[in-house]
Amino acid sequence: MDRLFNPRSIAVVGATPKDGKIGNTLLKNLMHFEGDVYAVNPKYDEVLGFRCYPSIESIPEEVDLAVVAVPYNYVLDVLRGCVKKNVKNVVVISAGFKEAGRFDLENELKYICRKHGINLVGPNCLGIMNAHINLNATFSRIFPSKGDIAFLSQSGAFILAVLEWARETDVGFSKVVSLGNKAVLDESDFICYLAEDDQTEVIMLYVEGIEDGRKFVNTVKSIDKPIVVFKCGRTDAGARAVSGHTGSLAGSYTVYKTVFRQLGIVEANTIEEFFDFSLILRRIRRIDGGIAIITNSGGPGVAAADAVEELEMDLARFDGKTIESLKSILPPIANIYNPVDILGDSDADRFGNVFNVVIDDGNVGAVVAILTPTAQMDFEKAANLITTKKPVVTCFMGGESVKDAVKILREKGIINFLDPYRAVKSLKAVKTYELRKKVEKTFKRFRVDMERLREIIEGIGDKRFIGFEGFRILECYGISVPPYGIARSAEEALKVADEIGYPVAMKVISPDIIHKTDVGCVELNVKREKVIPTFNRLVKIAEDFLNAEVEGILIQKMISRGREVVIGVKKDPQFGHIAMFGFGGIYVEVFRDVSFRLLPLSEEEAFDMIREVKVYRILKGVRGEKPYDIKGVVDLILRVSQMSQDLDLLEVDLNPVFVYERGYYVVDCKIMR
Amino acid sequence: MDRLFNPRSIAVVGATPKDGKIGNTLLKNLMHFEGDVYAVNPKYDEVLGFRCYPSIESIPEEVDLAVVAVPYNYVLDVLRGCVKKNVKNVVVISAGFKEAGRFDLENELKYICRKHGINLVGPNCLGIMNAHINLNATFSRIFPSKGDIAFLSQSGAFILAVLEWARETDVGFSKVVSLGNKAVLDESDFICYLAEDDQTEVIMLYVEGIEDGRKFVNTVKSIDKPIVVFKCGRTDAGARAVSGHTGSLAGSYTVYKTVFRQLGIVEANTIEEFFDFSLILRRIRRIDGGIAIITNSGGPGVAAADAVEELEMDLARFDGKTIESLKSILPPIANIYNPVDILGDSDADRFGNVFNVVIDDGNVGAVVAILTPTAQMDFEKAANLITTKKPVVTCFMGGESVKDAVKILREKGIINFLDPYRAVKSLKAVKTYELRKKVEKTFKRFRVDMERLREIIEGIGDKRFIGFEGFRILECYGISVPPYGIARSAEEALKVADEIGYPVAMKVISPDIIHKTDVGCVELNVKREKVIPTFNRLVKIAEDFLNAEVEGILIQKMISRGREVVIGVKKDPQFGHIAMFGFGGIYVEVFRDVSFRLLPLSEEEAFDMIREVKVYRILKGVRGEKPYDIKGVVDLILRVSQMSQDLDLLEVDLNPVFVYERGYYVVDCKIMR
Repeated sequence: MDRLFNPRSIAVVGATPKDGKIGNTLLKNLMHFEGDVYAVNPKYDEVLGFRCYPSIESIPEEVDLAVVAVPYNYVLDVLRGCVKKNVKNVVVISAGFKEAGRFDLENELKYICRKHGINLVGPNCLGIMNAHINLNATFSRIFPSKGDIAFLSQSGAFILAVLEWARETDVGFSKVVSLGNKAVLDESDFICYLAEDDQTEVIMLYVEGIEDGRKFVNTVKSIDKPIVVFKCGRTDAGARAVSGHTGSLAGSYTVYKTVFRQLGIVEANTIEEFFDFSLILRRIRRIDGGIAIITNSGGPGVAAADAVEELEMDLARFDGKTIESLKSILPPIANIYNPVDILGDSDADRFGNVFNVVIDDGNVGAVVAILTPTAQMDFEKAANLITTKKPVVTCFMGGESVKDAVKILREKGIINFLDPYRAVKSLKAVKTYELRKKVEKTFKRFRVDMERLREIIEGIGDKRFIGFEGFRILECYGISVPPYGIARSAEEALKVADEIGYPVAMKVISPDIIHKTDVGCVELNVKREKVIPTFNRLVKIAEDFLNAEVEGILIQKMISRGREVVIGVKKDPQFGHIAMFGFGGIYVEVFRDVSFRLLPLSEEEAFDMIREVKVYRILKGVRGEKPYDIKGVVDLILRVSQMSQDLDLLEVDLNPVFVYERGYYVVDCKIMR
Repeated sequence: MDRLFNPRSIAVVGATPKDGKIGNTLLKNLMHFEGDVYAVNPKYDEVLGFRCYPSIESIPEEVDLAVVAVPYNYVLDVLRGCVKKNVKNVVVISAGFKEAGRFDLENELKYICRKHGINLVGPNCLGIMNAHINLNATFSRIFPSKGDIAFLSQSGAFILAVLEWARETDVGFSKVVSLGNKAVLDESDFICYLAEDDQTEVIMLYVEGIEDGRKFVNTVKSIDKPIVVFKCGRTDAGARAVSGHTGSLAGSYTVYKTVFRQLGIVEANTIEEFFDFSLILRRIRRIDGGIAIITNSGGPGVAAADAVEELEMDLARFDGKTIESLKSILPPIANIYNPVDILGDSDADRFGNVFNVVIDDGNVGAVVAILTPTAQMDFEKAANLITTKKPVVTCFMGGESVKDAVKILREKGIINFLDPYRAVKSLKAVKTYELRKKVEKTFKRFRVDMERLREIIEGIGDKRFIGFEGFRILECYGISVPPYGIARSAEEALKVADEIGYPVAMKVISPDIIHKTDVGCVELNVKREKVIPTFNRLVKIAEDFLNAEVEGILIQKMISRGREVVIGVKKDPQFGHIAMFGFGGIYVEVFRDVSFRLLPLSEEEAFDMIREVKVYRILKGVRGEKPYDIKGVVDLILRVSQMSQDLDLLEVDLNPVFVYERGYYVVDCKIMR
């Protein structure tokens, strides 16, 4: 793919002398390109001083890259020409494909590219840029300065806006790619390329949807460079709008959020954050220790401390030596604890002395230096006194009076933020990126009773809903369920219940009933004399009133009520299996106290899932209760995860699971495949 | 107080020719002031061309305002001089008072001002400004341009930073006040003044703490102008830092948040929001209808739709006429539903046509217009086509290419935002301000059995913890509790239980035991034969094991378990009584599914408290359950509120309250006064 970004020769197909046309702008934008540029258009011999050929095949020299801006109905012909000419890299600017309902054209395009190994960008895109070789193969009037940030965007217009701002704030780029319809090359392909690109330090990614989620996950897992993502269509309203305006399937934002977090991809919610996070990750990739705040103004220092706590990071606790040093440097009324208030009358020297003491404290992982424009403060001097032994961000709060100081800081690789909150939030982005390190590559596998499993699966046949067999499958995976049996007649019910022992619970098994308890299809604490009437009643309710197909009645041993949790797995069409854990019982949907993870899971990740939800506090034992069997729940999550992947299940819903001080029971299960 | 901001003559006490000194800067800053300025310093006859007097009393003319910048130990003498000279307005710049531990000096200062009716700003402050008369009675080097925003700040350094940014972004101010220690005049006094000030449209308030919360609440309730607040010390870490660096008590952020919201005070979390919200509220105070989004680029339009949903506002649903018109204006592949995508090839005219259709839709309350810098878009033309029949914000995304258009927009009073999220969040600020309208002035009062109440209160004497009498007080307020009695001996217990009927619940009443259930001090479902042994056991556990003082054993009728909620009231030292409602039971602290309101409460507010928490979904009846008695809960909240205020209680904790389909029972109560 290197020739795509570093072509020696480019053909612009659809080149035209008509001002304002894309084929004209493209050619103008390529005037500064140092390689060879050919125009292609049967109507002309020459366009804007470039030799013009009637077709791409008629160009006598080798062509590394073709940029196509012809009406959509000519694109396939051009592409066939590229095949003949052996052009391996093609950018299709033209629209009129999937996004306009022409899936047929887009599929043909894909087919040709796959068959002949063509790297195709687009269609329906702005083009690509490589700022390091002055390659502007887009119709954008703006071209970025050289830098080490790569920018991939599903929206061409968004690129235009971003490049304008970038110019104002002096942010440079390496490569810029307008992804368009992603017919052939998608974000994962470019991420894979950019991971090896020496000119790229950070990847900015704007996406509305990621179609091949598993490819994306595997790609990101295999690289180290930071990725900052701006995902559009997060809410229902947004998702509706996305599917309204492109052919892309937005997918559930919960899934995206889960995937991004788990892979250490930093998510930006505003354009400002998109820049802030990308800039900070160019230089800072790790923070070992707490955040220290130094300020000459109490208020903004407090605002920063608020931000540290709200964003769930830690303020550094200074060690005794630091405190002693600060005492000797600062006036007695100064706050020497973190945030350190060097007071409004501080000059740059006092700031510098405090800075040096604080950054050397072993508990400090990063410093936030906040200075307001007092008469005493010499910002340039202060900027010069700052060292970057450890990550530092500044918040020199002012306009004109801090401009020169900000330049000095920038030369040191330090970013100055307008606002303490933004400064701290950027450090949080680094903490999120650090999660990347936690990505596991190997996973534990449990032994499974394969023989029995195969038998059960065969017995199920092609049913999508797995009823009572669900419990059998769980057992094969070593998952603990209460003693149970299935009855298809009243007499069988009595026999099964006699074997289990009284009292028993009786539940209707039916693919048509989702919330059994709500519709009277569960009876608890059934004594021997009630088994037969209960059987008959349950079947009657289900069949006559609910018009449901009844597979049988599940008879379970009544067990003592434990703490209720829920464990579920869903197969997402883009990303594959996603596990859920949380507060269980019938109110799970009210409290939504749940956590998610993409499978496969490591033991630590399963434990993290539990730690993330509020119900964890209960499981740990609150207010005098003994702790519940959290290890048992971790084991259960891992076994359910393995089961879901082994059998490629569409949905598993274990709710409730009763957890005890020792052990747990899966009381109810619903499995779909 | 008008002479404070519009003085005819000013004396600078501590004036000095020494460069860099505050007394020098002050005088320089007053050079452009059009009234009379006198220097005061016994060492000089003239300073910087101003006549200098040895003391304030020796000035022959009348002095409207004294600005004091002498060492702290001379301030009281100067103040006494002001009394003699009959100077009614004093700004004390000098530090060295409460914030330095000198509460004695500050109290003396307060005493003198109160006695002689002096309006004192500070001490320990930057001073005050009135941009409309060129009055810069501060030592700030920066002076704002004229505008209609007033800015009150507890941090002087923060003022410096804000004024610098304001200059860069062309934001003007009316008055600027550095509040300092607020010894005499506090934020409420200035808000009260600014409410009547014709030059002020919006009040920006930066505070670390509000000492006189009730004064603040009453002041804000009595005015209409929007207030945007930046509150520092929101988190524990922040609050610790605040109390570290000033003498101010931060108070609980939950309380502040409750008060701000309830009064329609808009809270900013970043400095950017502080400006954004203040600017938008200058012009927009009301949005009647949903938000409409118009964009020439899908992505940012989707981002805006995401923001609308995330911030819990509504996207407008267009009526049929609008849809028809849009169909006729836009190409067939455009999204004509909200967000309207006018497509990347749109020119300003197409945008203008769509804008006119959308803004006329009866369901549209505000328009967000998002344009990216495409080749086709003429931003200036687009800006000229925008009308302001209804609230409009824009997001012309770009740098250089949108500058002129932004100027046109500003002349129309329209704010352009860098980011769709920021644009939408600003509209949310307007929605928050609208809550101001909900502020009630009259409240319902329930009839109370005053005679019985007086008797009970007398019986309690001076105990702070109100044990079983709590139930009696609840009864006086018409609150429903299960039948109960108190027993101080085993025999009495049996007698009481016999009267109530079996089974009963038995609970230890003790000021020393907070979570009775956790420590075995509650026994449920007690039958007749178990009453005496249970009584003895409970007393033994409480007295011998827990070493608690036992007031007696509460014996309650066993009632059926309802949905558990909690209702509490706390008296905040700054703001007074705050009510809490939420998910009850022993896990209330785990889920923190609670809402808060400052008392007194209207019926609507009490209902809002319920609607705000997740447990509301349960109370409405989920998954086939019948709804619970929400009206009964509203009634209960109002009665408890009245009780707390009538009796000036410190804390009321009703947990659990069982709610049924009809009615409720307060099962346990703890009252402190």
